[in-house]
Amino acid sequence: MDDYSYMATLGLIDYQNAPPEVRAVYDDIMAVRATDRINNFWKAIANDPATLRRTWESIKEIMRPGALDALTKEMIYVAVSVTNQCGYCIASHTASAKKAGMTPEMFAELMAVVGMANETNRLAAGYQVEIDQAFLPGGAGF
Amino acid sequence: MDDYSYMATLGLIDYQNAPPEVRAVYDDIMAVRATDRINNFWKAIANDPATLRRTWESIKEIMRPGALDALTKEMIYVAVSVTNQCGYCIASHTASAKKAGMTPEMFAELMAVVGMANETNRLAAGYQVEIDQAFLPGGAGF
Amino acid sequence: MDDYSYMATLGLIDYQNAPPEVRAVYDDIMAVRATDRINNFWKAIANDPATLRRTWESIKEIMRPGALDALTKEMIYVAVSVTNQCGYCIASHTASAKKAGMTPEMFAELMAVVGMANETNRLAAGYQVEIDQAFLPGGAGF
Amino acid sequence: MDDYSYMATLGLIDYQNAPPEVRAVYDDIMAVRATDRINNFWKAIANDPATLRRTWESIKEIMRPGALDALTKEMIYVAVSVTNQCGYCIASHTASAKKAGMTPEMFAELMAVVGMANETNRLAAGYQVEIDQAFLPGGAGF
Amino acid sequence: MDDYSYMATLGLIDYQNAPPEVRAVYDDIMAVRATDRINNFWKAIANDPATLRRTWESIKEIMRPGALDALTKEMIYVAVSVTNQCGYCIASHTASAKKAGMTPEMFAELMAVVGMANETNRLAAGYQVEIDQAFLPGGAGF
Amino acid sequence: MDDYSYMATLGLIDYQNAPPEVRAVYDDIMAVRATDRINNFWKAIANDPATLRRTWESIKEIMRPGALDALTKEMIYVAVSVTNQCGYCIASHTASAKKAGMTPEMFAELMAVVGMANETNRLAAGYQVEIDQAFLPGGAGF
Repeated sequence: MDDYSYMATLGLIDYQNAPPEVRAVYDDIMAVRATDRINNFWKAIANDPATLRRTWESIKEIMRPGALDALTKEMIYVAVSVTNQCGYCIASHTASAKKAGMTPEMFAELMAVVGMANETNRLAAGYQVEIDQAFLPGGAGF
Repeated sequence: MDDYSYMATLGLIDYQNAPPEVRAVYDDIMAVRATDRINNFWKAIANDPATLRRTWESIKEIMRPGALDALTKEMIYVAVSVTNQCGYCIASHTASAKKAGMTPEMFAELMAVVGMANETNRLAAGYQVEIDQAFLPGGAGF
Repeated sequence: MDDYSYMATLGLIDYQNAPPEVRAVYDDIMAVRATDRINNFWKAIANDPATLRRTWESIKEIMRPGALDALTKEMIYVAVSVTNQCGYCIASHTASAKKAGMTPEMFAELMAVVGMANETNRLAAGYQVEIDQAFLPGGAGF
Repeated sequence: MDDYSYMATLGLIDYQNAPPEVRAVYDDIMAVRATDRINNFWKAIANDPATLRRTWESIKEIMRPGALDALTKEMIYVAVSVTNQCGYCIASHTASAKKAGMTPEMFAELMAVVGMANETNRLAAGYQVEIDQAFLPGGAGF
Repeated sequence: MDDYSYMATLGLIDYQNAPPEVRAVYDDIMAVRATDRINNFWKAIANDPATLRRTWESIKEIMRPGALDALTKEMIYVAVSVTNQCGYCIASHTASAKKAGMTPEMFAELMAVVGMANETNRLAAGYQVEIDQAFLPGGAGF
Repeated sequence: MDDYSYMATLGLIDYQNAPPEVRAVYDDIMAVRATDRINNFWKAIANDPATLRRTWESIKEIMRPGALDALTKEMIYVAVSVTNQCGYCIASHTASAKKAGMTPEMFAELMAVVGMANETNRLAAGYQVEIDQAFLPGGAGF
């Protein structure tokens, strides 16, 4: 368990100083993720136990393997974080994706797709391209 | 071959009216993608043949299955497009992902991850969370 | 109850055609919001009942008056939606804010602040301004 | 008065070294805000006195209490800055909001709303939800 | 003078129905821009005369030829609008840039640069590239 | 040739340790740009030689003077990078623009336009302004 406690807007809440409801979430995070480390992200939002609990419960449900496997989900998380220029999130989710099996080759292809998508997103918008009839959504269409 | 030709900033260039260098790219797109349809996106940027060629060559190279399969790459494309609020790109790449095998269940999980990542990207930034020592990048670290 | 059912990627799920778990959420939405209308947003994500439930439970908890009143929360929602250029969200949350008491004068001031913040966000980044010592966060600092 | 003068693209302009037109703006900032400190932001854009003056006059007019109070306006500023991932702006406007009366509880609720709005903005876009008839704007509608 | 008056959140204010302070701004816009048309943008924000006046005075000052000519400024406006996916702004500023002399060839190169910049912005962030010593800003450095 | 080699997700690849295909690109970069320095950006993406080559070939083609001169293109690059809050890109392209002839006066006007565009992008979206008939694109319209 590390001991940063001086940073972030409201400070970071370590396990030792956490109230029971926060400890319960920390325990669940460490159990589900098979780690004995709580990231600064959780320690920061733990200042608002309701947000801590809600965010963890949502992430636990969403990131669990389902129709998509855990690695694919982590790479999507990285794609969003890179698009948003969120430094913390790029660092933490690149680490998570690596832990879930992302190789340097996968990372490189992920970055290439993210870069390209950000480029063509602007070409499509800038040229004011109208949506093709064939792409219009519809219940029957999927 | 559809015939929209009235829209987009510089108009859309149909196959019939395209100069040889544009037709060559259109032919390659249709061959590689096994389709007889050219999307409005390509018809719009065809007004600049250099951009058409460069963009197609890049996309062909990037989207080809490699360390990541075609479906995963299309879903990453959707994740970026949704994060950027690019209407055209969401419509076209959702269609591409579906064609590459994305089921409604996969789409739903993709959206859940994209939504969650966009949420926690802001919690991390808003709480001004410092990057954990453990996440700092390094050549040896991968 | 309106009857759009032809749009959105996976279509819209009307109350009549909804499975029990979706109806339960719809019933709670209508009860909490004192309305007999379900927005297209909920009807679209209802294709994924887990996301419908989780999103509604989160929004219900987050938007409930607390340290901030309901109107302030709705105006913050509008501020984010405008910054992100999300057409649907601007329309729906402007309507919600109006319902919660936002007057045209409040809306105009909200827009002025959102516009100004988006401007100075870029001046600060573009001039590469270093954070003042006085603004550095810290647990004791709040 | 602090003395950073080595940073930012064009450097920072301290009061001592400022030309009269810049000093006049600095004086007004310190008077209106009842402080003897000029933030790095102002010192950076002071390299362009026209932008300094225009930006200060606009902010002074916009942030003045009106239909919305000063605290609400500062929290909206934070919401935009967090959505845009602007590090400087998050730090400085969180400090301003705190000075205007934002408690840790208010900050936590503000973050929860900003996070949620960023999530549902993407769900609405990703599911390609059509705007409800009821949300369409109109002069009479407000 | 066109007569749309049914759209936008607070409706559009036509010249005929405008109070004197709004008419004065409209008159100045038409004089400076040598046109007899007021765009929907101005008619929409005219609901808040203070924002109308402030925005117009700022734009008039900023867009006036100086160290950069009018066409370059309009193309920068387009670059920002495309990056932000602002449909209205892309349409209106592409028209303004065209009026200021932008040729189709210039537009095509503008789009290519905007697309590329959006791509490499993400590669730089995604690969977590540290800023080169040589790029660090400094007063003496410019 | 500097020697950072400890940073970035996959580390930085110095000339000495680069495989022949990477050295060939580095040689071309230094020749085209008349410099003996390779930026961290190139050293980071050099971990994926295909992306390095493709990105360099694209940038070389796009940034070459054409209908727009080199300085204008660099300033557009800065405008996009500032809008996206990409720290690395703001630093590196501000340096490039300066090298291409951008004066402090030009930089200041560039920032003013970028800031203003980001502001009015949100006012247009927030007021839900409908696109003027006169701005609708069309092939004949350019």
